Amino acid sequence: MGKTTGRVTLPSESNFLKETQELLDRWGADAIRDSDGTKLDDDIKSLDAKIYTTYFVARGHNEFAQKHMDECQQIYLMSAYTLCTGSEVEIAFNEEYFDQQVTPDYDHDPKEWWEVIDRTTGEIVDPKNWEVDSKKNVVVVHDAKAFHEYTVSFLAYILWDPTQMYNHITNDWKDKPHEIPFDVRKPNSRQFVVDYLKEWLEKEENKRCDVVRFTTFFYHFTLIFNKLAKEKFVDWCGYGASVSTEAILAFEKEYGYRLRPEVFVDNGYYNSTFCVPSKEYKEYIDFQQRFVSETAKELVDLVHEAGKEAMMFLGDNWIGTEPYGKYFENIGLDAVVGSVGGGATLRLISDIPGVKYHEGRFLPYFFPDTFYEGNDPTIEAIDNWLSARRAIMRKPIDRIGYGGYPSLAYKFPKFVDYIEKVCDEFRDIYDRVHEAKPYCGLKVAILNSWGKLRSWHAYMVAHGLYCKQIYSYNGILESLSGASVDVSFISFDDVLENGIPSDIDVIINAGDAMTAFSGGEVWKNEKLVSMLREWVYNGGGFVGIGEPTAYENGGHFFQLADVLGVDKELGFTLHTDKYFTTPVEKHFITDDVVEDFDYGEGMKNIYALYEDTQIIDYGNGEVHMASHDYGKGRGVYIAGLPYSTQNTRILLRALYHAANKEEDFKKWYADNLYCEVHAYPENNMYAILNNTNEPQVTRIFDGDGNSVEAKLEPGEIRWMVIENGK
Amino acid sequence: MGKTTGRVTLPSESNFLKETQELLDRWGADAIRDSDGTKLDDDIKSLDAKIYTTYFVARGHNEFAQKHMDECQQIYLMSAYTLCTGSEVEIAFNEEYFDQQVTPDYDHDPKEWWEVIDRTTGEIVDPKNWEVDSKKNVVVVHDAKAFHEYTVSFLAYILWDPTQMYNHITNDWKDKPHEIPFDVRKPNSRQFVVDYLKEWLEKEENKRCDVVRFTTFFYHFTLIFNKLAKEKFVDWCGYGASVSTEAILAFEKEYGYRLRPEVFVDNGYYNSTFCVPSKEYKEYIDFQQRFVSETAKELVDLVHEAGKEAMMFLGDNWIGTEPYGKYFENIGLDAVVGSVGGGATLRLISDIPGVKYHEGRFLPYFFPDTFYEGNDPTIEAIDNWLSARRAIMRKPIDRIGYGGYPSLAYKFPKFVDYIEKVCDEFRDIYDRVHEAKPYCGLKVAILNSWGKLRSWHAYMVAHGLYCKQIYSYNGILESLSGASVDVSFISFDDVLENGIPSDIDVIINAGDAMTAFSGGEVWKNEKLVSMLREWVYNGGGFVGIGEPTAYENGGHFFQLADVLGVDKELGFTLHTDKYFTTPVEKHFITDDVVEDFDYGEGMKNIYALYEDTQIIDYGNGEVHMASHDYGKGRGVYIAGLPYSTQNTRILLRALYHAANKEEDFKKWYADNLYCEVHAYPENNMYAILNNTNEPQVTRIFDGDGNSVEAKLEPGEIRWMVIENGK
Repeated sequence: MGKTTGRVTLPSESNFLKETQELLDRWGADAIRDSDGTKLDDDIKSLDAKIYTTYFVARGHNEFAQKHMDECQQIYLMSAYTLCTGSEVEIAFNEEYFDQQVTPDYDHDPKEWWEVIDRTTGEIVDPKNWEVDSKKNVVVVHDAKAFHEYTVSFLAYILWDPTQMYNHITNDWKDKPHEIPFDVRKPNSRQFVVDYLKEWLEKEENKRCDVVRFTTFFYHFTLIFNKLAKEKFVDWCGYGASVSTEAILAFEKEYGYRLRPEVFVDNGYYNSTFCVPSKEYKEYIDFQQRFVSETAKELVDLVHEAGKEAMMFLGDNWIGTEPYGKYFENIGLDAVVGSVGGGATLRLISDIPGVKYHEGRFLPYFFPDTFYEGNDPTIEAIDNWLSARRAIMRKPIDRIGYGGYPSLAYKFPKFVDYIEKVCDEFRDIYDRVHEAKPYCGLKVAILNSWGKLRSWHAYMVAHGLYCKQIYSYNGILESLSGASVDVSFISFDDVLENGIPSDIDVIINAGDAMTAFSGGEVWKNEKLVSMLREWVYNGGGFVGIGEPTAYENGGHFFQLADVLGVDKELGFTLHTDKYFTTPVEKHFITDDVVEDFDYGEGMKNIYALYEDTQIIDYGNGEVHMASHDYGKGRGVYIAGLPYSTQNTRILLRALYHAANKEEDFKKWYADNLYCEVHAYPENNMYAILNNTNEPQVTRIFDGDGNSVEAKLEPGEIRWMVIENGK
Repeated sequence: MGKTTGRVTLPSESNFLKETQELLDRWGADAIRDSDGTKLDDDIKSLDAKIYTTYFVARGHNEFAQKHMDECQQIYLMSAYTLCTGSEVEIAFNEEYFDQQVTPDYDHDPKEWWEVIDRTTGEIVDPKNWEVDSKKNVVVVHDAKAFHEYTVSFLAYILWDPTQMYNHITNDWKDKPHEIPFDVRKPNSRQFVVDYLKEWLEKEENKRCDVVRFTTFFYHFTLIFNKLAKEKFVDWCGYGASVSTEAILAFEKEYGYRLRPEVFVDNGYYNSTFCVPSKEYKEYIDFQQRFVSETAKELVDLVHEAGKEAMMFLGDNWIGTEPYGKYFENIGLDAVVGSVGGGATLRLISDIPGVKYHEGRFLPYFFPDTFYEGNDPTIEAIDNWLSARRAIMRKPIDRIGYGGYPSLAYKFPKFVDYIEKVCDEFRDIYDRVHEAKPYCGLKVAILNSWGKLRSWHAYMVAHGLYCKQIYSYNGILESLSGASVDVSFISFDDVLENGIPSDIDVIINAGDAMTAFSGGEVWKNEKLVSMLREWVYNGGGFVGIGEPTAYENGGHFFQLADVLGVDKELGFTLHTDKYFTTPVEKHFITDDVVEDFDYGEGMKNIYALYEDTQIIDYGNGEVHMASHDYGKGRGVYIAGLPYSTQNTRILLRALYHAANKEEDFKKWYADNLYCEVHAYPENNMYAILNNTNEPQVTRIFDGDGNSVEAKLEPGEIRWMVIENGK
């Protein structure tokens, strides 16, 4: 592999010219970026590379914001549940919140814009029966019911951009000003963001900028701190902080109804992505996405007029511009850049439609928490690269990059060597595969309430942190991100409106009961249930993980229990004998298993319904894995699927089995489950990947099922030519 | 302890006179019983003992029954779920059932009495759209919806008494006639049972009978076999087999509405005790209990007129005569006899109101499965006695007894010795305590949908078999059965109608979400919720186990989350920070803990809501035990409570803590948790029990909290006099 260049972005910093040049050369980088809080010196900007400049739209302009505090961004917040012990209850509604971040909005009449709810009955309290003391920030409810709990949903102004607040508090930035977020739906702000960008683009210091890196646009994902200045709730996909009286009135004008505060507060769940979205919330999302994409387009057009490219950072103030939303492509962005934590987050970036290029920022970030004496940052880099690489093989991003202080990385020569290798390997892969469609044995759709909008980040909590309740589902996405199947995300609404796409081989429904990912009450919809039954009956494959199709109705908990061949015992049929408890001796799905099964949190009380349910794994009085023929199709049940190499293989086999295509499984296949084969028939090439940092020996199967043995070095990728035109 | 006699019932058998006399003498027995399938010889009957004779009311009279097959007992059964794949579906509705047990009732118009249900929509299919083929036992549904599931709820005749069927099949009785159960609600049967009993009482061979042991009355609990003659479903409390067209018409006359087949079939759940009972089902139970108790009273009156006693066996055909039902006492029975599996089943018998005496049949049963060469039946006897004995200390039964073949037991001299000791110990305990109220430190109520009716047998599946889904709750009852607290069982209906009884210190709500034991939708009832909150706030104690008060509403899953200080994460608040994860260093509830905690199945995803929630045990990212002050009262949460000595102590401490009466805990108390103290202040006595078969040393606390050390032999009970009138 000869030395190649390009497709790599380097962070830089002051007084680091010579080393920056050296890293540019060694890593073949062709772009340089600033980072949060760092600026590029002129000498750096003079290097032969594209220059990315971070741009903040709706924060970081306090001189403007302070003059227009009534244009601050807003959010609906819910007070703590407050118990009434007499006939009156006093609710210190904002007591739990961080007063430097949020403050009640008294500019708009609370009687019109707020809601007091008796949470024990769910009834809205007549505004006549409560009043606000704006000095004490207290709502007093009269004629309240004893031993009912009351809450106040109040409209608040957001005084501090959450990302800056987080960085400020974490890094103890002391009296550095708090950046006030303003709302482009309000007149002065709308004008300001346009005017300021025009001005910025004209500035001499920005002439050298090639790429305006929007970080990001208008509305931050939900991130609210508590009175101790600690995180209280956070939802990377939450629309809470995009609300305003203007938005609600505009919505009312268009949709003919007023959005209640409860649409946002949602029982205190704040429309977590795990909540099945209400009709109102879905309409609000659509409404805001249209507004945000139209407004963002104006800015992007200005950037283009200035001869620069517009890149969006995937995160922070990204609400309304989620790249899998319906209107995203209209914005006209050139590129999206996001952080790569593994295969699923890589695909989250690389699958984005409608932009010219996709850039992934790899780990580790060049920060002292990793780059300290005695630590080997290469370990994290290898892990990050090997987990992302298999996803790149399916759908490559166009560029990779790094962030932080390069002077730190520079002190670790082994790391610099390794990244040099990664950059070369990335370019080599990219050149070979970016225009070729990889061989996909199956088309798989993940079915949940969100569908395409939450592609590759279903189940995400916060910024993708570990969470006990999600890792058993997240593994599905991570496994699929590098598997040789086509993956799409479809929603119940999609299916109910348009039917099941004709090219799908297998549908996956996975999640805890009543969540947006399992689906909850939608499973009472006979149209959905009978459509899926018919589809499987006629040959489709259905894989259920956790509590799929779960909604207690008509004597079933899993509404597709008849398809899956299993159901969950809720107690109501404890008196009914469960006859089928014996696992089959051998099953296609578990043919490669070398380690103990790992279902993560698993699922209790699953039992087989039929004699012809094939129990694949049974233990502790429960079915953990099963398959069931249903007409010409099949259902497969798995109790949970945390990410592991073995579970990746189990899932892939489950998909082939569900699709009744076992005979196609050993095409472009490695029998050692730590290895994978990716084939590009259009290019007459295939690659054998060792996904581990150990040597591996594997038998490799070509597209006709012929096999040879291969020995692979740690982390090796080996390119092979497809013989005989196969 | 001198030799005492009485209060013991011996089974006998043919050709066993001398040995029967010897056992009578050694065990001090004063009654002899026949068993199922054995008759007592005349020489046995001549012994100096009361004679019990088993009497079957509504079975075992085939000469009558065969003449009146239209008076067979009936049941509503549901077909298998049958998928419609076109526009018509054929349902072989009784295919799954055992045709020797049940047969469809074609005497009553299926169009009037049956129901075809589209289980995918829940709609009843118009009878015009289906017809029955009575030759093929098939229902054909026209204009059916493709890929909907259909069921037929059909009325069937029961051709074989389930207990006799079970014994017949189990013991391979070959061509012994199947006993046909007939229904006393029908005219000929009603007359027959009266006439036959009159005749029977007159018979010379029954003159020597002192006690007519009804086994039992009219309707068997639900026990249905499948087509392979294996149990299909069984519910010891099920009213399914008490139904008839006559009953439904009589009900309609009284209540003004017709009971649908679905009231009995209940989604195929058949009103399992784990299902929250519907209004209709509760009304039907009341209706049948009145009928059954009135009719049973007629028979009991005849027995009394003949100068004999009437005893009821607790089980088999007991439906409508459940001893904690409202009308049971009206029957006028002299006694109830039941099987003792441990403390809870002992209390199930001994707490029965309104009879003169209670008899418990102890284990092991004298059958070859235990009494075989090489086995030591004493082991089971010791375990059975020690577990029941602590319950006897709280509320003694009046008699004990054994069943089976005494000739088998006779071959095990060590066993005969041990039972001799048990009989003497039982009589000694009985004499000391049966008229004295034991010291009770607290009054505890168990709150569920069934209340008093299912006293001491809540959570029971089948005949009290082990079940994965119940053992974590059953331990509560077993622990309480011998604990020095008053226990009552109250229903949500009781509380909603009459409020919380004023003398209750602690309420326990325990069970899986949505079951009759947790309560399900009743927790949406603001009256219930606010009443309990108020009660705890004013000083009550509330102990929740498993998924107490669970119904997702108003932002809580546990509706008394505010009382308990914990809730369960369903996914909707994963984005909300959970701050409180640190357990307290020491807590009153766990002060005696010597073994690892055992929560049985435990409960996932429980988290603390408040800073002042005292987390007592935390692990695997979950709260397992916690307490929380609420006004003057307290809530305690425990994830599960399988029976063990340690869990008994944990529960008792939890109750005292919840009641805010910790200072009373060490009264009549043994600090070694394998020992217990039971005090009878009225009699100036207390007993120290070693509940194990090992020697134990314990410190014993009297009613003033003074303590002394005691060493106890295995299984010892030591009686002490209360000094100074304490």
